[in-house]
Amino acid sequence: MEPLTDPEIEASLAELARGWRRDGSKLVRDLELENFVAVIALVDRIAEAAESADHHPDLLIHDYRHLRVELSTHSAGGLTARDFSLAAAIDAL
Amino acid sequence: MEPLTDPEIEASLAELARGWRRDGSKLVRDLELENFVAVIALVDRIAEAAESADHHPDLLIHDYRHLRVELSTHSAGGLTARDFSLAAAIDAL
Repeated sequence: MEPLTDPEIEASLAELARGWRRDGSKLVRDLELENFVAVIALVDRIAEAAESADHHPDLLIHDYRHLRVELSTHSAGGLTARDFSLAAAIDAL
Repeated sequence: MEPLTDPEIEASLAELARGWRRDGSKLVRDLELENFVAVIALVDRIAEAAESADHHPDLLIHDYRHLRVELSTHSAGGLTARDFSLAAAIDAL
């Protein structure tokens, strides 16, 4: 799968929920939840979506109730449609 | 709760499973599991132990099947017995 071009990335970002940002070759979203249990519950749901898509984000649970989601397609060396598809699925949770 | 002294930290580290290391004010362990599903299952079990202890590690799920566990007692500004207690509980999973 080919990495998206910069204009394609900009257009794809505009279709996602606010809060997603590009960080180089990664698509990143920071979330603050009510507590640790809520973070873990969301991680479980993201994990189900990730398994369904066979595409696996990095997930950083930090400071008790914060979650950072990072998407990238390492095999393509950048962002691809797979990253934006999984981001949209996460938005839909 | 008072932070542990360096000799106390060294002694406590010696009682944990191999793989734990001190990184400044944090206690860190890197784990490589079979796959993403196995990582998430372990995260769920660590989360239960964390809730029981009312002490919450940072958890970094990365590169599909890797998990980094980081423990620290922010309120004490260092490592305390709570960190080593939770580390031992994680070892027991």
